[in-house]
Amino acid sequence: MPSPSAALYRVAASGPADVSGVEALFAGGLDPKTVVAVLGKTEGNGCVNDFTRGYATSAFEALFARHGATGVSIVMSGGTEGALSPHWTVFCRAKVEAAPARALAIGVSRTPDMLPENLGRRAQIKLVADGVRKAMADAGIVEPGDVHFVQIKCPLLTLARVTETYARGETTVTRETLKSMGFSRGASALGVAVALGELDLDGIDDTDICNRLDLFSGRASTSAGVELVDHEIIVLGMSDAWSGPLLIDHAVMQDAIDTASVRAAYERLPPGKLAAVLAKAEPDPSGAVRGRRHTMLDDSDIAATRHARAFVGGVLSGLFGMTDLYVSGGAEHQGPPGGGPVAIIVEKATA
Amino acid sequence: MPSPSAALYRVAASGPADVSGVEALFAGGLDPKTVVAVLGKTEGNGCVNDFTRGYATSAFEALFARHGATGVSIVMSGGTEGALSPHWTVFCRAKVEAAPARALAIGVSRTPDMLPENLGRRAQIKLVADGVRKAMADAGIVEPGDVHFVQIKCPLLTLARVTETYARGETTVTRETLKSMGFSRGASALGVAVALGELDLDGIDDTDICNRLDLFSGRASTSAGVELVDHEIIVLGMSDAWSGPLLIDHAVMQDAIDTASVRAAYERLPPGKLAAVLAKAEPDPSGAVRGRRHTMLDDSDIAATRHARAFVGGVLSGLFGMTDLYVSGGAEHQGPPGGGPVAIIVEKATA
Amino acid sequence: MPSPSAALYRVAASGPADVSGVEALFAGGLDPKTVVAVLGKTEGNGCVNDFTRGYATSAFEALFARHGATGVSIVMSGGTEGALSPHWTVFCRAKVEAAPARALAIGVSRTPDMLPENLGRRAQIKLVADGVRKAMADAGIVEPGDVHFVQIKCPLLTLARVTETYARGETTVTRETLKSMGFSRGASALGVAVALGELDLDGIDDTDICNRLDLFSGRASTSAGVELVDHEIIVLGMSDAWSGPLLIDHAVMQDAIDTASVRAAYERLPPGKLAAVLAKAEPDPSGAVRGRRHTMLDDSDIAATRHARAFVGGVLSGLFGMTDLYVSGGAEHQGPPGGGPVAIIVEKATA
Amino acid sequence: MPSPSAALYRVAASGPADVSGVEALFAGGLDPKTVVAVLGKTEGNGCVNDFTRGYATSAFEALFARHGATGVSIVMSGGTEGALSPHWTVFCRAKVEAAPARALAIGVSRTPDMLPENLGRRAQIKLVADGVRKAMADAGIVEPGDVHFVQIKCPLLTLARVTETYARGETTVTRETLKSMGFSRGASALGVAVALGELDLDGIDDTDICNRLDLFSGRASTSAGVELVDHEIIVLGMSDAWSGPLLIDHAVMQDAIDTASVRAAYERLPPGKLAAVLAKAEPDPSGAVRGRRHTMLDDSDIAATRHARAFVGGVLSGLFGMTDLYVSGGAEHQGPPGGGPVAIIVEKATA
Repeated sequence: MPSPSAALYRVAASGPADVSGVEALFAGGLDPKTVVAVLGKTEGNGCVNDFTRGYATSAFEALFARHGATGVSIVMSGGTEGALSPHWTVFCRAKVEAAPARALAIGVSRTPDMLPENLGRRAQIKLVADGVRKAMADAGIVEPGDVHFVQIKCPLLTLARVTETYARGETTVTRETLKSMGFSRGASALGVAVALGELDLDGIDDTDICNRLDLFSGRASTSAGVELVDHEIIVLGMSDAWSGPLLIDHAVMQDAIDTASVRAAYERLPPGKLAAVLAKAEPDPSGAVRGRRHTMLDDSDIAATRHARAFVGGVLSGLFGMTDLYVSGGAEHQGPPGGGPVAIIVEKATA
Repeated sequence: MPSPSAALYRVAASGPADVSGVEALFAGGLDPKTVVAVLGKTEGNGCVNDFTRGYATSAFEALFARHGATGVSIVMSGGTEGALSPHWTVFCRAKVEAAPARALAIGVSRTPDMLPENLGRRAQIKLVADGVRKAMADAGIVEPGDVHFVQIKCPLLTLARVTETYARGETTVTRETLKSMGFSRGASALGVAVALGELDLDGIDDTDICNRLDLFSGRASTSAGVELVDHEIIVLGMSDAWSGPLLIDHAVMQDAIDTASVRAAYERLPPGKLAAVLAKAEPDPSGAVRGRRHTMLDDSDIAATRHARAFVGGVLSGLFGMTDLYVSGGAEHQGPPGGGPVAIIVEKATA
Repeated sequence: MPSPSAALYRVAASGPADVSGVEALFAGGLDPKTVVAVLGKTEGNGCVNDFTRGYATSAFEALFARHGATGVSIVMSGGTEGALSPHWTVFCRAKVEAAPARALAIGVSRTPDMLPENLGRRAQIKLVADGVRKAMADAGIVEPGDVHFVQIKCPLLTLARVTETYARGETTVTRETLKSMGFSRGASALGVAVALGELDLDGIDDTDICNRLDLFSGRASTSAGVELVDHEIIVLGMSDAWSGPLLIDHAVMQDAIDTASVRAAYERLPPGKLAAVLAKAEPDPSGAVRGRRHTMLDDSDIAATRHARAFVGGVLSGLFGMTDLYVSGGAEHQGPPGGGPVAIIVEKATA
Repeated sequence: MPSPSAALYRVAASGPADVSGVEALFAGGLDPKTVVAVLGKTEGNGCVNDFTRGYATSAFEALFARHGATGVSIVMSGGTEGALSPHWTVFCRAKVEAAPARALAIGVSRTPDMLPENLGRRAQIKLVADGVRKAMADAGIVEPGDVHFVQIKCPLLTLARVTETYARGETTVTRETLKSMGFSRGASALGVAVALGELDLDGIDDTDICNRLDLFSGRASTSAGVELVDHEIIVLGMSDAWSGPLLIDHAVMQDAIDTASVRAAYERLPPGKLAAVLAKAEPDPSGAVRGRRHTMLDDSDIAATRHARAFVGGVLSGLFGMTDLYVSGGAEHQGPPGGGPVAIIVEKATA
């Protein structure tokens, strides 16, 4: 009896355009058409002028074009501060001849195109929530509690989109491109929270977005990209309909040094080999961690998000004993202020 | 029966010149004359143009002058990357009416002035080794194995010192001020290793200094300062002749994520309250941690030492659950390449 | 017949706390009590965590205290990017036995303390305008057209000041310290514009402050400091009542490469020795200079103000053939967007 | 009577991979096969981890492949600090029906592959000198004095190349990749000097390379790239055999603010439209400009080369009234210490 099964490869990158490790996987027999998504950590600054993300994306687009793979979701997160290691995590799914047995399930979806006036407003939350439900269905996950990580790539406002919107007599939530990225990430994260039952859409006002930090999802990871006007959604969770050795769970770090929550999640998983860690990090907006001042928000030499990735990267690398973790910054409504979601995927030991 | 006893205060700093917390300790009854040393973490870049160290030092000098305290060793380490918190650690010692009972002992010494031609050479190693032995005697520590941390402030070469040396027909190990700091730190660390029996002076050549990275002390922490031509030495260890609730042990991290060694040292200490953590961090010179590439040494936007402090700061903060740790960079011959010494001081729980 | 006469010294600094050059002036006969103001360029980042300004200020305060000089206005501007050279410009005034002959005049004033609710609002504009008129009177300048540079140090909002204001039932223009600095600088600059007749107070609304960039003074240079709640004002201009060899004029750069305006102002002055250049610089908010894109506002590695100082520092250093210029960033309502005021002081050649 | 004629296009880039402006030129009738070279300024940091150069190069390679143009020399220089504007300068040459009339001539050549042991040594100087002479011949330039700018792309050492060299029993000038880039740039620049008669090969020792700063070419601009093992050479000069409206001259800035030399060169050219400015910049190694200290070499937050480009970019932009200049850093043996070559190309006004 065939069942869907997930596979995952963590591949080292010697630079932003180095896709040779993935090409080697294809040469070694991996079917490029089974690739669903690539989550990459590139060595840029992860901020406005980080061109390593675009460079990596164009290298992967060329790779997949050469191999006839289409529709792969490519999510690049810049910033490998500290000893974090640049790498690609390649997610695959295929039908295998194996009985279903509760395992990691991967689902994807795309929302309809979104009008610019809806960005950063309740309409985006609703649109994303519908998309997450669709990706859950694609993954064969019924219970929201079985979802452990939702990665979303969302659109942003450009000058042209803003102009066109006002020409139609509508308004946008902001006229600034950079701010629109935060609004889009934040609304998308709240969309995850609504789909997973963490929050009720009726309890969220337009003005709460990027404002009420107590509203968040413990399983959302969102990033904004200029190249799309819809949303690419990847859902990772557990499903009884899937098979394979991979299992996932998650923690919600309450602050930057909350290893207890992460350790507890790790211990809920069976013994095995660590396959991937996916986390969000941000500088505590209060300016302190457990009552002690940090200086990330006042440092005009290094962006606060770079500090946060380096530090939380250290916290998690120390705990997991490995440095090729996906630690991403910019965590509006993704976990509590100063904390963030952490998903852990293990390959269970075979008897 | 009176015995010497050590006290230690970790004091928050709201900025590089904020000594108000220490002033409050004095107002609250702490005798300024018992202060032996201050180890500070300031929020500069920890590199060449870090003026927060000088600013803090001048604020402390004025404070101690106002309070009639003399001979206090002031060691400022710049760089509170990530969530590391700027703070001062104030070390005191006083005679108390208590029977000796193995406890934290603090000893200090100063070496004779050093000629510039000896900097970064075997003569400096020998000079420092003698000084460390003197500080051990001052602390009442006989066994080298009872020493767990040696902080040294060492001189550097200035243009004037180099010129004067060559005028006398002698040579210096380098003509560059910045490089001389590394040589001085390295030779001082090797001096600690010799004093503590970790290395044999006869086995070290001049050319090994800052070159043979396999030679190191697991208990040295050294920094160079322009204001002195001798060495200020602070020895922290355990002594049967002292009393008080403080205890110290140390670990040698083998790489940036070696929490096992640190955890083991922490567990060797009895239960109690964490009083201080003193550590050295550096980017792994091999360019990788456990076989996975890091990008610290190739980042022309952020100094590698800043990356290393942020990351190792995260590793240790996650492990200890606290962010006001003394994590210092620039670790020539202080621990193995990419690793470093970590001293842990606890206040034992009273029954 | 005695007349007031201005003197000016440009003194090199080997570091933020190096006041030895000014001390040498005193040792050489300069009366410390004639010092009216010090404008300094220090080698910090000129942004939030630039502690070189406070370090320099405390060194000067100690210097003036040692020499019994009181009431000296100390203005420190961080940032000597590119080849700009750290230095102090010391402004003095004294009665001399010489007939008045149109020359550089210096006037100072302080406003009454300002309530926090007035910061960044029309009330501050009015308060500063009154203060500028008072400083003009102090300088013996009647015609606003004779004023060529007004340096203002203005207050900012702290958390405590905001809290206290709301406790009284009033509101502040912002709750954020950093933003309050911009509002205070902007309103102060508009106050200069009103006093000098460049703008009419009736034409300025509260909402125009830091918003309508077409409103500006061509002679204002303002900076915010946490240590004061009033305003320190220094007016530089020409007066028939003064004597001495110094003369001043000014230009308003229309963009970052507008050397024509500066050259014209320089040529309006008689031949002589360049004594000082005081300028403001900012990245063009349009994102372009003469239609060509710049990348200052998108660079997450280097603050835009640092880029602007380096570049405009180059423009002016190339033109004047000297690198110890006072080029300061943060130019809200100080010159047109992307441009800024430039004051030039020369010592006329004696026959 | 046909003659070769040069054309030159300065094209704005909205990002490192934006070749749309050049594509538009092709669409507008420019024959892609006439393109000889592209010199680009990209908005990276111009240092080790500047991936904008590789990103831009790959975008151009794809563009030229689509249009069937081969052998185009692509030279990318990172760093558009200050208001410098990212852009491409496209150099073309074609036969036109016009009588020869002294005009800008472009010649290119490639050297034979170079063995790694020759890098940074006299053998490289000789190899490059021969290549420059070949490119001069290709340009139809006989007199070295008619050459005004030589752009060279030279190889560097990689770990693999070093290992292979030592395996053959030879040695390399250094084992460090980064240092090898400086040696290769320096030896290449000296090769230009030898070819142009500025220096005599017999007077240069291996140990002079990157050491004796008084030896330099006033017309060389060199950059190292990992992708080649030979040298790509582009010579720009004046030739009686060419035709067209473009003319070139050059200056050698003696220090960072030497506008007099540049102005003189500009004035030697006939009136016309400025077509391109190509310059090298570096922080003065003495630590001062005209006796006044600069802080570029002590800034651990911003690379010294970034400071230098921003500042010299300002100097030249102020002088030329335009910001899309090719200002490149890393100037070993390219102009005097702290100064550098500046080539100016104008399109002469037609009657």
